[in-house]
This record gives sequence, structure tokens and C-alpha cells, in this order.
Amino acid sequence: MSDVIHETTANSLQKSYLQVRNFTDQIVGPLTAEDCMVQSMDDVSPTRWHIAHTTWFFETFVLKQNPGYQEFDPQFNYLFNSYYNSIGKQFPRPQRGFISRPGLDQIKEYRSFVDNSMTELLAGGDLDENTARVIEVGLHHEQQHQELILTDIKHVMSCNPTLPHYHSLPLDTESKSGDNWIDVAEGMHEIGHDNDRFCFDNELPCHQAFLNPCQISNDLVTCGQYIEFMEAGGYQHPQYWLALGWSTACEQGWDAPMYWTKIDDQWHIFTLAGLQPVNPEWPVCHVSYFEADAFARWSGKRLPTEFEWEVASRKLDDSSDRGGQFADDLLSRNKAIHPTDSTRALFGGVWQWTSSSYSAYPGYQPPAGAIGEYNGKFMCNQYVLRGGSVATSKDHIRRTYRNFFPPQSRWQFFGIRLARS
Amino acid sequence: MSDVIHETTANSLQKSYLQVRNFTDQIVGPLTAEDCMVQSMDDVSPTRWHIAHTTWFFETFVLKQNPGYQEFDPQFNYLFNSYYNSIGKQFPRPQRGFISRPGLDQIKEYRSFVDNSMTELLAGGDLDENTARVIEVGLHHEQQHQELILTDIKHVMSCNPTLPHYHSLPLDTESKSGDNWIDVAEGMHEIGHDNDRFCFDNELPCHQAFLNPCQISNDLVTCGQYIEFMEAGGYQHPQYWLALGWSTACEQGWDAPMYWTKIDDQWHIFTLAGLQPVNPEWPVCHVSYFEADAFARWSGKRLPTEFEWEVASRKLDDSSDRGGQFADDLLSRNKAIHPTDSTRALFGGVWQWTSSSYSAYPGYQPPAGAIGEYNGKFMCNQYVLRGGSVATSKDHIRRTYRNFFPPQSRWQFFGIRLARS
Amino acid sequence: MSDVIHETTANSLQKSYLQVRNFTDQIVGPLTAEDCMVQSMDDVSPTRWHIAHTTWFFETFVLKQNPGYQEFDPQFNYLFNSYYNSIGKQFPRPQRGFISRPGLDQIKEYRSFVDNSMTELLAGGDLDENTARVIEVGLHHEQQHQELILTDIKHVMSCNPTLPHYHSLPLDTESKSGDNWIDVAEGMHEIGHDNDRFCFDNELPCHQAFLNPCQISNDLVTCGQYIEFMEAGGYQHPQYWLALGWSTACEQGWDAPMYWTKIDDQWHIFTLAGLQPVNPEWPVCHVSYFEADAFARWSGKRLPTEFEWEVASRKLDDSSDRGGQFADDLLSRNKAIHPTDSTRALFGGVWQWTSSSYSAYPGYQPPAGAIGEYNGKFMCNQYVLRGGSVATSKDHIRRTYRNFFPPQSRWQFFGIRLARS
Amino acid sequence: MSDVIHETTANSLQKSYLQVRNFTDQIVGPLTAEDCMVQSMDDVSPTRWHIAHTTWFFETFVLKQNPGYQEFDPQFNYLFNSYYNSIGKQFPRPQRGFISRPGLDQIKEYRSFVDNSMTELLAGGDLDENTARVIEVGLHHEQQHQELILTDIKHVMSCNPTLPHYHSLPLDTESKSGDNWIDVAEGMHEIGHDNDRFCFDNELPCHQAFLNPCQISNDLVTCGQYIEFMEAGGYQHPQYWLALGWSTACEQGWDAPMYWTKIDDQWHIFTLAGLQPVNPEWPVCHVSYFEADAFARWSGKRLPTEFEWEVASRKLDDSSDRGGQFADDLLSRNKAIHPTDSTRALFGGVWQWTSSSYSAYPGYQPPAGAIGEYNGKFMCNQYVLRGGSVATSKDHIRRTYRNFFPPQSRWQFFGIRLARS
Repeated sequence: MSDVIHETTANSLQKSYLQVRNFTDQIVGPLTAEDCMVQSMDDVSPTRWHIAHTTWFFETFVLKQNPGYQEFDPQFNYLFNSYYNSIGKQFPRPQRGFISRPGLDQIKEYRSFVDNSMTELLAGGDLDENTARVIEVGLHHEQQHQELILTDIKHVMSCNPTLPHYHSLPLDTESKSGDNWIDVAEGMHEIGHDNDRFCFDNELPCHQAFLNPCQISNDLVTCGQYIEFMEAGGYQHPQYWLALGWSTACEQGWDAPMYWTKIDDQWHIFTLAGLQPVNPEWPVCHVSYFEADAFARWSGKRLPTEFEWEVASRKLDDSSDRGGQFADDLLSRNKAIHPTDSTRALFGGVWQWTSSSYSAYPGYQPPAGAIGEYNGKFMCNQYVLRGGSVATSKDHIRRTYRNFFPPQSRWQFFGIRLARS
Repeated sequence: MSDVIHETTANSLQKSYLQVRNFTDQIVGPLTAEDCMVQSMDDVSPTRWHIAHTTWFFETFVLKQNPGYQEFDPQFNYLFNSYYNSIGKQFPRPQRGFISRPGLDQIKEYRSFVDNSMTELLAGGDLDENTARVIEVGLHHEQQHQELILTDIKHVMSCNPTLPHYHSLPLDTESKSGDNWIDVAEGMHEIGHDNDRFCFDNELPCHQAFLNPCQISNDLVTCGQYIEFMEAGGYQHPQYWLALGWSTACEQGWDAPMYWTKIDDQWHIFTLAGLQPVNPEWPVCHVSYFEADAFARWSGKRLPTEFEWEVASRKLDDSSDRGGQFADDLLSRNKAIHPTDSTRALFGGVWQWTSSSYSAYPGYQPPAGAIGEYNGKFMCNQYVLRGGSVATSKDHIRRTYRNFFPPQSRWQFFGIRLARS
Repeated sequence: MSDVIHETTANSLQKSYLQVRNFTDQIVGPLTAEDCMVQSMDDVSPTRWHIAHTTWFFETFVLKQNPGYQEFDPQFNYLFNSYYNSIGKQFPRPQRGFISRPGLDQIKEYRSFVDNSMTELLAGGDLDENTARVIEVGLHHEQQHQELILTDIKHVMSCNPTLPHYHSLPLDTESKSGDNWIDVAEGMHEIGHDNDRFCFDNELPCHQAFLNPCQISNDLVTCGQYIEFMEAGGYQHPQYWLALGWSTACEQGWDAPMYWTKIDDQWHIFTLAGLQPVNPEWPVCHVSYFEADAFARWSGKRLPTEFEWEVASRKLDDSSDRGGQFADDLLSRNKAIHPTDSTRALFGGVWQWTSSSYSAYPGYQPPAGAIGEYNGKFMCNQYVLRGGSVATSKDHIRRTYRNFFPPQSRWQFFGIRLARS
Repeated sequence: MSDVIHETTANSLQKSYLQVRNFTDQIVGPLTAEDCMVQSMDDVSPTRWHIAHTTWFFETFVLKQNPGYQEFDPQFNYLFNSYYNSIGKQFPRPQRGFISRPGLDQIKEYRSFVDNSMTELLAGGDLDENTARVIEVGLHHEQQHQELILTDIKHVMSCNPTLPHYHSLPLDTESKSGDNWIDVAEGMHEIGHDNDRFCFDNELPCHQAFLNPCQISNDLVTCGQYIEFMEAGGYQHPQYWLALGWSTACEQGWDAPMYWTKIDDQWHIFTLAGLQPVNPEWPVCHVSYFEADAFARWSGKRLPTEFEWEVASRKLDDSSDRGGQFADDLLSRNKAIHPTDSTRALFGGVWQWTSSSYSAYPGYQPPAGAIGEYNGKFMCNQYVLRGGSVATSKDHIRRTYRNFFPPQSRWQFFGIRLARS
């Protein structure tokens, strides 16, 4: 990773630090201490855990590297380590919801304590390059957990029969999608991160790959299109499905995307702003890889590979074409965090399943030490998603960004973009 | 049940109502709203659920019988019904810990609302006999949940690696046990509730049973005696165990009572006042039926039947011999809720496993209506315990009282009293 | 046990030995070596295992007591020990169906080898009393396994979609049941085995028990009566059920007795002679304790206790009233093994659930040594059945005989006899 | 598939048909009817099922296409369909071991019946091209099941504590491995099947791929090398493992390859010829993808991609370099089916895990109809293996052949070949 992180002055890092940490506070704002306790399934972590864990990250990988630093509470290392074996044992993940003490107040104290030490460090100005890089990782790490806070609390609220709202903001306006396709030319293409701005290790090394010609849809699959699939028996006919997808769908009793429910012949979806009638123009959301793949097969098209997606995205100017459906942007416009725009949204709105299994790029090397556990060890039985979602911050995503989840996952904002050869 | 509940004036009921409801507040006192959220295993309910459910009981079975009553929130009927099929569907038990809203504040409002209505009703003076009886059931029901609040929060705290204390009171003093036995004579004995004070339906009807002669120990089995069993290979030798007990012990990896842990060759037990060294004079606690039965077999004695226990208890004057190790009494003396006295404690300290499967007395009839679901439907694969514990209120227990749990349960204050023929 | 086994001459034992061992061969007759391999659920053992295990019993508890005996194959001790911890470790029960070697041929050789040694021993005439008793236990043990061979192979065949017949014999004729009741008088009654013929240890000691007056039906509940219960919503309404029964029924999706299936509006039952239309006059069969109890509650009656059953049975002359629906009797008349007679059948036809939890009689002591593991260690979470079934041998059953199974079991020939107070 | 299957005369097909079908008989030869019954885990099928299913394949996809054909038994379509949803419902896979009827004799009759019809068809000479192709698929399909018969019966035998031998042949001689590497040049390479001989649809289309330069070991990883990994704490240190691999290893308690056991400080392996001391020169076998990947990481190298493997294999003349450790070859030399040669064995011996997730080649289209369910629907959460094993027939394997299994699988003959960049 050391060759690609650009020179960051402590000054701009300090600004980023405050901004990212404040945004966590902002999205936790609507929640009570009791909301922050719940772990509604193993994949979900309590909000309080996210708040503490992102703080633990800075304390462990930055502050505790300084021998003079006195840690806030030695027990937190066990409680709030997620999966870093190099750091030590971890409290069992499925029991995170059993821990009521430290209370949220004390966790906030912990947060302030670490923020003070970090601010002091960043103000000191004598930051070595490696520390600067780890802080950058920590900020992108916290942005990832901001997305998880939103998706996890959505799941928590959905388990409550009173269907509480996370926030009561209006939904953003939808846009009509068209039938436009982006051409990807046959030949050698450059894949992976190629500049000195931040990236994760799994976007490296930048390398060449040969692609056959294809086209990528300019639009996301809409709820209306997905309902057609459902009405054509999509959930009844195994021929559209991967074998593992079909058995999963049968075992779990899937007959619609997650969070969908039919009331008086009208599909509704549970959103962070409560239950809403499904709008056919919205991008379909909360589908697994299995459903995305089955939809694509039914439609006579296919999912893109992650390389095809990345090459297509190069055609668009990153900064100008990213639309507005990102977490920070939506909240700044007082809109609910829910995808409504299917148009030209290569970035934002919903993460898009690719057909690519998550694996190492040729010559990939994880960084030395505990940070090396960040990405590489998860390269098995997961599929790559691209593009970011309504729960992502706009400055977190980039063209080469690789998100990854097991094919049965649905609780993130996952959608579908099609390709054709 | 109608024939046994004595005439209660609204006046004395009102006094009991306030006293019982206040005691719930008292035991919830040391807990934060976050503590009250946790469900650390399926058997455990969050404290907040207990607080709401006991309130729901009065609202449902008393207040809502009055057509003029306006319920606090219609959704609570689904959320806080435990297992009354006659009342309607119930929210799935293992998910009680997923519900963060209504918040504890709102649940306390619910509690006040119902208390106000109940106080008004009780002050009105025109209470019919049936309503009076249901209120009495509701108060005893709440006392049962007070005991569950204490045992459940103990389990919750024990799952937290920081081992928080529920309270920081000193432990009560222990007493040396002796070797005294109470004689039970051969012949016909009267079993079951025989007066006009309150009892549950499962203590009825009062009936005759023939007993062979036997003796019941005047003392509880101590930790010291139990450690002898452990050191003699009690957990290694299947010959002491019921087949189902042995397979359970192997599967669960039992090698000591629940909450015991060995530190530097000294057994410790997690208590509501934190981790404590085990005192050999204390009664052994948190053992399953299987362990109680295995200990008894190893010691060459046996568990008493519930009838033998009840007949033995008749020899003691109920009021004077109950000792002091009850929840209300301990708290009034500023002592921690933990059993320390093994002597002459037929009542209080620890519930005592009997060898009797929980079943209906001859001619037993559950009451009509939803209240009939209180006891009868649980008469399968459970064993009767007698005597009450440190988590029981002194005025809740009586000689004919039948507690019951599955044989593998250990999280209640369960101990051992021996018998011999 | 030592005080009750009568003096058996080696001569009569030898005759019994041959008769019992031959009957095993007779019931295994219709099966192929492949049929004998299958373990269709954990509760079921492959037929070949039953054949080997019953042989192992005689080898282990009789022949190997003689130091001069050379065992057939030392590995069989591990393979064919069921649950005797005192004898050594046991091959895991759920994997019995994985063992194809020794082959059935070799198991039959084992059987012949042991039979030869046993015959020699029995012919020798110098049998000590203890050996004679153990041989008697072994014969009754083998009769129990004969019943299991029949019920287990029925389950095996039922899992095969081609629904093979075990045998193709005609069903026995049915008899119309009436409305007759047997009076049980209030007072002290003698319970348990009281003579010097064989019994198991769990029927001892003979003791006194006080009973309230009641009546026991002279007839078994019929399929027709049970269908009324079903049509009245018996499987839809929790109020008839024990809580544990209701949750079991929901989880398992029960809507009729085991082996029942509806074809063109007519209930059919899978029998050892293939699929048959249900005859309303037949006794209902293959119901769990939970279903028996729910039916009784729905009908306004109850299940008898095992003591009530035993006292009622004393009114009938054992030998003359046992009817003909036993395994040996049916086969000798070339009739299929299936219950068809609901009349006056206190014995035979179907085992009858009692409301009694399986527990020790006052003063019960299991025999010393491995044989002591036969009954006592199973006295938990099981219910007593009385009377024997179509799969029992006529000379195996007796008035004091206590069969026992967990309340959810259905694959044995279990039926219902009602009582009323 | 239609464009690549070469013109096969009915004559040569007939010869292949007889040869393949006879080889199934040969490998089933050492087994009893009882051996053929066992399903020792869900992944394993009883031998009898393999025999019937391969026959069902020809009956269903060839013979039943002829309207005049009368099927042997209509029930077999349900019993012996593996996973073809287009053909109809399938008997539940985990219950295949419950089916004792039809007996092995009847299954052999079925086999003869279908063989007769097939022989007649093949002798007729008027075979259309599509039928010829399906027959070829059927023969390769049967060869795959021959491999499964061997690996499944090995698992079955290993579950039997008497450790029976499948055959008692001597092991083949081992060869010393060296340190030779095959160069793969940077640049565009052709991947996939490129001639008119048989291949499966998943080897198509032949396409271009860009590879970075690398080297592939000329030798398989040996048991001796793997023992070094084990002794270096390979199974104790999570840093070598994928996260999913580490949790699997912990849950399953892995501490050595499957079938390995330590006796008196010497590792032994259960083989088809019984328990054998592990020879350090043999290729390591029965390791999962997770173990192969961890070993590679520990050794400072990596697994090859399937493309690297395929390109390396082009350097070797297919026919001359395949060595002799294939099933047909070993048996013809009267050697046990177990890998002993680690040298120059790109083909045969053990299947070699690649780092490639099993996915579709660019432009891949499964064939129309039920045959289309053969490969494509399994392209999820599986990894590609290359090269064939001691259980494969020599004429079954080819350079472009893609085997695939989930990463936790170990019961096939799976080994390790390393690559380095």
C-alpha cells in the first residue's frame, strides 16, 4: 500500500478526521441508547459497537503505537476488536448485543478521549508517513462502518412490529430510466488503482486484463422490471437460478426482495423512513447475488464482471457524473436514505452485484502486520459489488473500489445493473 | 380456584398492590435502560419486557374487562403477551431483545398509566369477587417475575467479560450446617392447599396420599459437600447420572455448577454482587436436576418427592422458621442477594429439586379462560422445586407452593436437599 | 431383582431360549440383507444391529462371565453395545447404519456361534441362579428388540416412496367397540410385581398406593373417534394441548397420526402390509403422548395414571382376556401385524399412554453391575405405557409391565385408552 | 456444445459404451450388496445409487427420447434423478441411504435392460448426431461417477471402526520429487477446448486471456513437506488462513489432512487398501482448498490460477506425460488406488486446487434442455481443480478439464501444486 498513498499534510488529515467523525455522530443522532443496543442477527452489530470499534481502530493502530499513550480501558481491546487475530482474541461476534456496559455514555467518553488524543497528534505536525497512511485507512474504515450503522439499524427497526422510523425525512424524487448502453471495447484494459490518492490494498496492483467486447446498461434495474420477473414466476422456476441460489431461496422462503411486503395487492418496502409503497421507477434494492443473477438470466442478459464495470466507468467523468444519491448528500438535502433514481447512476443509489468472485489481483500482497487482515483473508465465497449506495459517503467511493459480500446477503443496499455481450 | 381465594377487601388489596409494584421498581433500580434491553439466551427476557408484561397482565385481565377502559397502546397486546393463546398471537420469545421501542421511558409511562387506573379501581370499593381474585393472581404473578428479573439480569451480567455487579452489597453471613433429619411418618397425609388464603391452581385440590416412612435433611447440601462430589469424579463417571443428564452434561461441557470458575485453585462464583470465592458452608446453588440427582446418588441418598417435602414442612411453624434469606428481607438488611445459609432453611435460600415430575393433582381443573393457561399446560417434562430462594419474596412462598423447571435448567437459584428411606 | 425371579430349571430355559431366538429369525425372514442395513432416523436401528446386539447381550452378560469362553470377535463389543457404560464405550448410535461389515452372513454366524455356546451351557444343567436370571433378562430383552425390529422396519419402509410391504398378509378382522367402563375403587391398592415369575426391576418393589375412585374405558379410542377430534380442529386449537405438545406439533407439522395420509378424501395408513384405508373401528395408533393427552382433553376425559390402569387390569383374568392381537399370535394365524380390534383389549393391539411420568417406585434399587443400567437411568422425561401391542409377544407382557417413551414419540404402536373420575 | 463434439461413428461409441459400463462393474466388484447401501454423509451417495443413476441417465436422455421405448420402472425416474429440475422432482439427497428396494439385484436387472436397449440402438447404425453427443456425455458422466464410487466407498469404509479394505492390492511405488518449475510466459494465451474431440460445456468457448509471467511447480506437494507445515504450527496460526478457512478448521477440529491419524508418533492414512503409514515422498492428499491455500501462503508461494495451470500443461505432450496413476491403469497393474508419485504428475495422482473460483468463460452458454443443468448452475462458491486423480480414468481427463468443489471439501483425492510469480 505504501507506494500509492499520496502525501497528506497533517492539516488536511485533521480536517478529514473531524468531518468523518462528526458524520458518525450525525447518523447516530436519531437513535436512543436502547436502539444502539440491538443485534438483530449475527451479521448485524449494535450501533454502540460500531461507535466503539471505529474508535478502537484509531486507538489501536495509531495511538497505542506511541509508547507514552495510556489506553482508555484495557478491556476495550477485547470487547471492540472485530477480527484482527494479530491484535488478540475477540469477543464472540454473535454476543455483541449482550453487552450493556460500558454504557453509551461511557463509549462516548471513550470517543472523546481518543478524539482529543488524535487531534493533539494531528495538530503536532510531526506525522510520519506510515502513521498518516494508517489514519487515512481509519477514516475510510469509519466510513464503511457508517454505511453498516445505517443498514444494521434498518434491520433492527424492521424486526420491531411497530416498524419505527429511523428518520422521518421525505423520499428523494425518482427519474425515469431509459435504454442506454455503455460500450466496452475488446482489448487490453488497465484494471485497478492507478494514482497516488487513497485506495485499499485489494484495488492493487494496477494491472492489464483482456476483455471481450460488451455493453453495460446505463441504468439500474427498476422495481417495475423486477416485479415483471416476479410475476413471470421468477421465484417459482429453478431454471433461472444457480443451484445454491435456488436451495437458499427455498429454505429462506424468498418470494420478493428483502423488506418487501404486499398490502392490499400493492408491494411495500420498509425503509429508513418507514413503510412505503414501492415505486416502479426506483432501482430495485435488497436483492442477493442469487436474485440478481436469476433476474439477469430471465431477462436474457447477464451481470457484468467487475472489470467490465470498471472499464465502463472510465468513460464517465468521476466527479461530475456521480449523481446525488449518497448518504452525506441526501442528508444535506434533508432527504431520506433510500434509492429512488435509476438513471445514469453508475455511482450511488445501490451497490451493483458483479459476476466476479472476490479474489486477489495478480501480484497482490496484503500489507504487513494487523492491517494486512483488512481485506485479503476474506477472498473466498464472496462476490464483488461496485458503485456505492445511498448509505455510502460520496467521497468514499471510487471507480476501482471493490465491495464484497456472500452471495446470499441482502440487508445492504444491493441492486442490479445488466450487461450484454 | 374460586373456592379457595379468601375475601379480600379492596383496601388490603390496594396496599398489596402498591407494595408489590414498588418492589419491582426497587429491584430494577440499579439497572440502566441499556441493561434492561438484553436477552442473553432464549430463557432470559429483557428486564424491560418483565416490567411491561406484568403491567400488561393487569391491563389485560383486569382493566380491559371494563368496557369503558381505553388501552394505553393496542400494539402492546402483541408485544407483551407471554404465552396466552386465548388472548392472541405473541411476539416470538427469542426476539424480545430486538425491541428498543417503546423505550424504557415509555414503558414506565405505561406502568404509571395502568397503576393510576388500578388505584382508581381499587379505591372505588365496588370490586367483585372475581376481579379481586384476578388481581391477587396478578400480584403473585408479578412476584414471580421479580424473581425472574433477578435471575435473568444475573445471566446477562455474567455474559459480559467485564463482570459488572448488579449491586455492591456485602454478602450475608453463613451458618454451619449439622446432620439433623426430619421424620416423615408412614401413612396417609394431606397434600395441597387447605385454607382460604391465596394459592395457585396447581396446588389444588387438597387430597390424600400414602407415604412410606422417610427422613428429610434439615440442611441444604453445601458447596463443600458438592466439591467433594466433584473431586470424587462426579462429573466424570456416568454411573451416578441419569442417561439424559449424562448426555446433557457431556454436550454442555459441565464440570461444576453454573457460574462457577476456578481461579488459582480456588473455586469462585459469579454473584449479583460480582465474582466471589466459594465458601464451603454456603448452600450449593445453580445446579440442574441432573446434577442434584447425580449428587444424591453418589452420596447414597436420594432427592425427596414433593409430597415428602410438603409433609416435612408441616412440622415447622411456617411463620417462625422461614429464616431470612428472601429477596425483600435481604435487601431490607442491605445484604446481597446470594444464598449463604444452609441451616434449617426449608424455606428461602435456594429452591430445592424434588424427584417429582410436575403433574396434576387428582381432580385438578385449570380455571376457565385465559388464566387457565397459567399452570396446567406446562405439566410435561418439568420437575417440581419447593421452598423459595434468595430471589423470592418472603410473603410469596408457602408450604404447598410448586415451582417447576425443565431438568437441565440451572440459571435460577436451584439447590439440593436430601432424603433417605 | 434377585428376590423375584422364580426357580427356572435349565430345561425350561433352554426351551424358552430356542423359542425366542427362533421367533427373531421368523420376523427377520421377509427382509433382505439390504433392508437390514437401514437406519432411517436416529431412534431407529438397522435390523442387523438388533440381531447382533441381542446376541451380544448373551455373549457379554452370560458367556463372557466364564473365563474359558473365547469371544467371537473382540470388535463386536464396541459395535454392538447399546448403552452400557460399565461395559465400555459404544459406537455412536446415529451411525449404526454406516456399518456394512460384518455382513449379515457374518452376523448370522455370530448368532449361531453364541447359540451353540448357550445351548451347550443350558444343556450342561449346572446353571447357578444368577446366570439363570440373566438369561431370563436376555430373553425378555430379545423380545423387546423383536418389537423394535417390527416398528423400526416399518419406519424404514415408510421412507421409501415405493412403499414396500414388509409382509403381504391380510389384516385381522375388526370388532365394534362399546361404551363400557371398568370401576377402580377408592382406597389402598397394591402396585407392582408380586409373585415369583419374571419381571423387570422397574416393576419393583411391590408397594401400596392410595387411589381416588375412577373408571377406565373398556375400549380403545378408535380411528373414527380420533377423526372426529381432527375434524373438530384438534390440530388447530392450542387449548387442547400441553404447551410442549403444541410447539412440537407446530414444528413437526402434525395434522394426523404418524403414517396417515389422505388420498381422495379418504385417510390411509401405511402398515407393515402396505398402504391401507383407515377403518373407523380400528384403534387409533401411532399417536404421541401429546396427541393422546390433547384428544383426552377435547373429549372431556383424561388419560389414566399407570396405577389406575394396573388396578383396573387386576379385574380381568390375565390369561383369558388378552385377546389375540399380539405379534406371535397374529403371525400364527397368518394375519398382518396391525391393530384392528378396539374391544376389551386391555392387553395387546396398541400400547396405551398413561399420564404417569416414568419414575422409580418407593424403595426401588437397580441391580448391581451393568444390568443395573437397564431401566433406572432412563427415568426422566418419559411417560409410561401399558398393555403391549400387535408387535409384542403374548408371553412378554404382564399387568405390571412398564413401557416408557418420550412424549413426542410416535413410531411405536401407541394408542389411547381413556379414564374419567 | 453442438459445435465441438466430433463425428463419432456408432461403432466406436458402442465400443466405448461397453468399456465404460464394464469398468463400473469392475470397480463395484469388491463390494457386497450391504456395502452398496451406505450413505455415510450427505455428500456421499450409496454405490447402488451411482449404479442406478448412471443407468437412469442413458434411459432418460437417450432411450426415452424414442417414443416406442417402454421404461423399466416409472418410479425410478423419481428415485434416481440427481438434480435435473427439468426432468421432475428428485428424491431428497440425504435420504438416499434409506432405500433398500429396489434391491441391488433389481438394479442390476435395470442396468442390463438399459444396456440391451442401448446396444441395440448403437448397433442400429442410424444414430443422429445429437443422440451421439448425449451418449458421449453419458459416458463421461459415468466416468465421473466411477470416481465418486471410489471416493464415496472410501468414506463409507472409514466410518467403520473395523477399517475394512476396499481392495487388498499393494501400493504403487513412489518417486522422489525434485525442484523443477515450468515457465508460463507473459502474454495472451488461448484457454479452453479447441478441437473436435469431446469436452464438457464448461470448457467452452475457447478464448483469449492475458497472463502475467509465472512458474508452476513440476511436482506435487509431498506428505513430507506438508508435515513440515503441520509441525511449524500450520493448524495453530490463523495468519496463514483465509478467514472462512480458519473458522471451518476450528469448527471441524482439523489438525491434519482427512483420513490421517497418528499412531505411536507415526502418521497413518486410511486408504482403499486399509490403514497405511504415511510415506513422506507421496503427494499429500485429502486436503481442502483452505488447507492448500494456507500451505501455499506458509511456503511463500501460491496456488496457480486455472489458466496458468492450463497454459503450463500445454508444454507437455498430453499422451506421453500423463504418468500412470489413474484408476484404470492402477487396476490393470494390480496396484491399490492411492497416490504415491509426486513427480512430473501434472495429470493423475491427485486433483490440484487452483485459486480460481468456478465461473463461466466469456460467452459461455449452457446447452438447451435438461443437459444444460449439468454444469452452469453450479458456478458459485466452488473452486476449480485440474489434472485428475488416481480415481479418474486416463481417457477421461484432458488439459482443459475443469473439476470443481466447495472449498471445504476433502473426501476426494485433492492435493496441491504450487506456483510462484
